Amino acid sequence: MQIPSKYLENAVNQLSSLPGVGRRTALRLALFLLKKSDSEMNDFTDSLKGLHTHIKFCEICHNISDHPICGICANSNRDKSIICVVEDIRDVMAIESTGAYKGIYHILGGLISPMDGIGPNQLNINSLVNKAEESKPKEIIFALSPTMEGDTTNFYLFKKLQHLSIYISTLSRGVSVGTELQYADELTLSRSLEQRSEFKAI
Amino acid sequence: MQIPSKYLENAVNQLSSLPGVGRRTALRLALFLLKKSDSEMNDFTDSLKGLHTHIKFCEICHNISDHPICGICANSNRDKSIICVVEDIRDVMAIESTGAYKGIYHILGGLISPMDGIGPNQLNINSLVNKAEESKPKEIIFALSPTMEGDTTNFYLFKKLQHLSIYISTLSRGVSVGTELQYADELTLSRSLEQRSEFKAI
Repeated sequence: MQIPSKYLENAVNQLSSLPGVGRRTALRLALFLLKKSDSEMNDFTDSLKGLHTHIKFCEICHNISDHPICGICANSNRDKSIICVVEDIRDVMAIESTGAYKGIYHILGGLISPMDGIGPNQLNINSLVNKAEESKPKEIIFALSPTMEGDTTNFYLFKKLQHLSIYISTLSRGVSVGTELQYADELTLSRSLEQRSEFKAI
Repeated sequence: MQIPSKYLENAVNQLSSLPGVGRRTALRLALFLLKKSDSEMNDFTDSLKGLHTHIKFCEICHNISDHPICGICANSNRDKSIICVVEDIRDVMAIESTGAYKGIYHILGGLISPMDGIGPNQLNINSLVNKAEESKPKEIIFALSPTMEGDTTNFYLFKKLQHLSIYISTLSRGVSVGTELQYADELTLSRSLEQRSEFKAI
């Protein structure tokens, strides 16, 4: 694909560095941006630069925030004695949207993944251990993805927190709501059998 | 989806204005950009701003170019007596990549589409008619998409150019190379029967 302008080529190269954007899509995006007015273009680039200049990370839970302490940690109605450990702020948003959780969070910023060169020191693990030692929460919930990396991180965190004798829980694993049982994979099905709970008629 | 920062929200709103990018993808892109270093971020936004400040449109054919006249129009080896009319610079790139065309181009910048409020005056049609009147090319090829809008534009252009008695051609329509005949749609198949040509054993 021969691009007839080095400035367009440059924009296409930058846009195709985004996750999930190939060169064809990048060209489509660049031509779309080319049609924007100067002021629209300024708004666009300013909003992206604003990410770097304005966004802070909460000093307590590492959530993204406009203030030194995020809205959840600063909220006096949230139960500070339960800490939910998640990988990413998108997990916080997913759990918040259920409305079923009233505790606080701790964002690791990733999962331990030797394949990708991510070790425990690159994650917000020490601050979690310090927080647990100081505030002695009632419960810590591990809400990481049910993957190899998630399980490795769960195990590492457990070893680090074990000596504090805090109740540590993890999200239940089982068949998704709305799934047809015959299509559930074997591992999920066997886990949901092991972790079966008493039936309650509501 | 409750986003915990107004600056992140702003970036997500801007990114989700891009074609084919929804709010979830926009959030993923924004979080990816947030992890870039300051200098990487500057390179990124500068490359987008460069689209507006540096890119020119060729004075002859309206192709995107870094100079007032594009590389194809400025190339003395190209046959200036054949003009290929296309919708978009992506069509130029597609035809150039075949290596089968040695004439020049004229980019309309869109197709006539009353549904989208695009009339002939918003397209580079007058400059095509003027160019044809002045330079009297041997042939004008209509290489527009075989859609309703493409056909409407073809018809409009033909009416505008008819009085110049220039040979006007259009891309052949027929079954794609590599298609199984049984899966070709009826309209395409009937067109390829009408436009059948003499078989040549190479």
